[in-house]
Amino acid sequence: MKKLSLGLFLLTVLFFPTKAQQDKEIVDSFFQNAISDYTAYEQLRYLTKNIGGRLTGSPEAAAAIEYTFQELKNMGFDSVYLQEIMVPNWVRGEKEIARISSTVYGTTEMHATALGLSIGTGKDGLWAQVIEVKNFDELKKLGEKKIKGKIVFFNRAATTKQYHTGNAYGSAINQRTEGAVQAAQYGAIGVLIRSVGTAHDFNPHTGVMHYKEGVNKIPSIAISTNDADILSLQLKQDVELNVYFRTTCHQRPDVKSYNVIAEIKGTEKPDEIILVGGHLDSWDNGEGAHDDGTGVVQSIEVLRLFKALGIKPKHTIRAVLFMDEEVMQRGGKAYAREVKEKQEKHIFAIESDGGGALPLGFSIDANKEITQKIKAWQELFLPWGIYNFRNGGSGVDIGPLKEQGIALAGLIVNSQKYFDFHHAPNDVFENVNQREMQLGAAGMAALIYLIDKYGL
Amino acid sequence: MKKLSLGLFLLTVLFFPTKAQQDKEIVDSFFQNAISDYTAYEQLRYLTKNIGGRLTGSPEAAAAIEYTFQELKNMGFDSVYLQEIMVPNWVRGEKEIARISSTVYGTTEMHATALGLSIGTGKDGLWAQVIEVKNFDELKKLGEKKIKGKIVFFNRAATTKQYHTGNAYGSAINQRTEGAVQAAQYGAIGVLIRSVGTAHDFNPHTGVMHYKEGVNKIPSIAISTNDADILSLQLKQDVELNVYFRTTCHQRPDVKSYNVIAEIKGTEKPDEIILVGGHLDSWDNGEGAHDDGTGVVQSIEVLRLFKALGIKPKHTIRAVLFMDEEVMQRGGKAYAREVKEKQEKHIFAIESDGGGALPLGFSIDANKEITQKIKAWQELFLPWGIYNFRNGGSGVDIGPLKEQGIALAGLIVNSQKYFDFHHAPNDVFENVNQREMQLGAAGMAALIYLIDKYGL
Repeated sequence: MKKLSLGLFLLTVLFFPTKAQQDKEIVDSFFQNAISDYTAYEQLRYLTKNIGGRLTGSPEAAAAIEYTFQELKNMGFDSVYLQEIMVPNWVRGEKEIARISSTVYGTTEMHATALGLSIGTGKDGLWAQVIEVKNFDELKKLGEKKIKGKIVFFNRAATTKQYHTGNAYGSAINQRTEGAVQAAQYGAIGVLIRSVGTAHDFNPHTGVMHYKEGVNKIPSIAISTNDADILSLQLKQDVELNVYFRTTCHQRPDVKSYNVIAEIKGTEKPDEIILVGGHLDSWDNGEGAHDDGTGVVQSIEVLRLFKALGIKPKHTIRAVLFMDEEVMQRGGKAYAREVKEKQEKHIFAIESDGGGALPLGFSIDANKEITQKIKAWQELFLPWGIYNFRNGGSGVDIGPLKEQGIALAGLIVNSQKYFDFHHAPNDVFENVNQREMQLGAAGMAALIYLIDKYGL
Repeated sequence: MKKLSLGLFLLTVLFFPTKAQQDKEIVDSFFQNAISDYTAYEQLRYLTKNIGGRLTGSPEAAAAIEYTFQELKNMGFDSVYLQEIMVPNWVRGEKEIARISSTVYGTTEMHATALGLSIGTGKDGLWAQVIEVKNFDELKKLGEKKIKGKIVFFNRAATTKQYHTGNAYGSAINQRTEGAVQAAQYGAIGVLIRSVGTAHDFNPHTGVMHYKEGVNKIPSIAISTNDADILSLQLKQDVELNVYFRTTCHQRPDVKSYNVIAEIKGTEKPDEIILVGGHLDSWDNGEGAHDDGTGVVQSIEVLRLFKALGIKPKHTIRAVLFMDEEVMQRGGKAYAREVKEKQEKHIFAIESDGGGALPLGFSIDANKEITQKIKAWQELFLPWGIYNFRNGGSGVDIGPLKEQGIALAGLIVNSQKYFDFHHAPNDVFENVNQREMQLGAAGMAALIYLIDKYGL
């Protein structure tokens, strides 16, 4: 008996890999398959180059829904369907004009973009003196006397001394979102903001802004960081210079649109869902490559990887391509509402909406126990450069699921360049690297694999 | 007494930061200063855009020596000097021509680059049938009968299934370095190699090749990966197709050149040196931005940071801008020889020659004790994304110092894109991000700071 046991033991050791070895092999296979595959990269090329910027409510957004829906059907997943939502339909109109007119410097054309949800100036445009401020406190100190009838120029640069460029963005973003409301309270007739970005260049960065009931709506545009520096310089020599700007953007009635959803049905617990998502809409002044074309094709890639590797998950793996992240977040909100109504059980949701750059980790928004469980898998990801397993937020689209107690996470990627092209004309396909994007997709797929296997 | 002690204790705790806090503050200050400073970035712009590709022995290499020497002088370091060396002077000559001529496909122009140290074809060029192989074994099997009088086409693609793209490069590089010798042994009259890179594009990648005494010297060129795919495809339908290629590259006599060196003198141990370096030469078909313009300006930046932060090191910090890394490595070899001759004590040397992308860690080539000491500082670097402290090689230029028992290290950066532009026309300034490059410089500066403070 003893001899036989030893034989069995050796047989087990030599021919049956341990659980840890199995996990390592499968996790590795996700990455190996992904980095040598171009399916998602070619899908991104189509979304960005053939369709282009996919503003919520636009024909391009509709084309992206149609394209991804057909693509997911063709890829043969178990279930591909649309979730109907009503979305805002803000349109940019004609190309923006923004011009400095100074008795000292002459005329200077600026690179400008209307902010999302802003009203337009009308065909004649706006023409007024400019008052530069760095923040809302300065605005308040100047008061109505100095501001009334003028264009307010918010020129606070994003701080760039920190590693996390999201903090840089956060440090300047209220100029874009609230600047018009703040300035209008003191009688301003328009708002110019310094683009919220980390680059020194001529690319203007758009993004959503908001009005407030009871406060006069005034037109708002962003100018590039270089143009902001030029305008600021000119104002030092010529406080009486004028700026002219013209936008014809406007709001149309809401239109019908869709979240696009595809699933691989679970073999053991088909009613328990693991979600991976990104958002299909983008701004219209670039190609929406990193924001968030990559999140979309990475989500599809997660499903492709399971299929390609022949892994049949126990739980249902669902890719959700959310509509309208950029403007009103209607896709994410509607999705969460429906989950609640239908009492669909979600055990985990992860979003990729930080760009398709080198993945570095996961930001986990879950209870302590689940967070610890996920962190314990770090070792499997380290050979692929994914090391940073930390507590933090997930994503705008899956965020509304939080109140239902669902464990959430976000893919953390190298953010150093992200705010160089975020919401700007240079957010194009050429700035995405196939390997980096695919490593991110593989990272999410491997994490989902482990959650599916061991539960949360 | 008791009361006084408590008071003193509180005073100490409240007003005197601990050593660990001090270290953290100073390490952070290196990064904070670097990412908001554009000195190195503008130096890189000059090296790449005003001077351009800096082939060893070329007028551009001489201009780069002159420029960096003056720049270092202007920056006010304690000592700036040149180290004379003799370097090879291979010149590319006229723009390369490479063309497929097929009765099936007609004529196809290819994107080609002569390999460094290759002889040229002469003005008439070479015209011959082509035989495709993947490796030296296939070549051997075909033998002289099949190869004699033909052009050998080495078409083994770099493997791309691994995280570390250096492995991809390593998997295909012998085609470039030894292909001509191997093929000439069987009577080939020329060699075409598939560019050793990770991208699918039309950029041909150059790099050095070698001949062997006693083996016929035949001309060698690289074609882009896309062209290699096209040629391979055409050969499947038309084995008798011809390739024409023409190069006028040739070797001139060695010329005088220099390593450029600058120092901040140590306050306590001026004769003990900590070295940081990169290489000033580059290939000439691009701008030598990531390879290794970034290593050069990062090395200068390390000195600038010490000066800007007012930190007076105990040991001498020396930046060495090596000449001739790409062709014969004469700069690195001469430097090590002189260190030995002059018995200059070096306690540590670090090189940046993996590109100016996001820094991720340090590769340490030192004894166990020193390696452990360095690894223990990891925590200070983690907030800045530098997490990977591992054993490994350092760099080609400082490598020759190893036999003198000097502790070496290399900066590890994100390598996913590096072999997309390594030795190719797209290695240009525009592909370098200021923040990523500066994080790398700050990482090296902070490591040097800790080594200077605590010794090794």
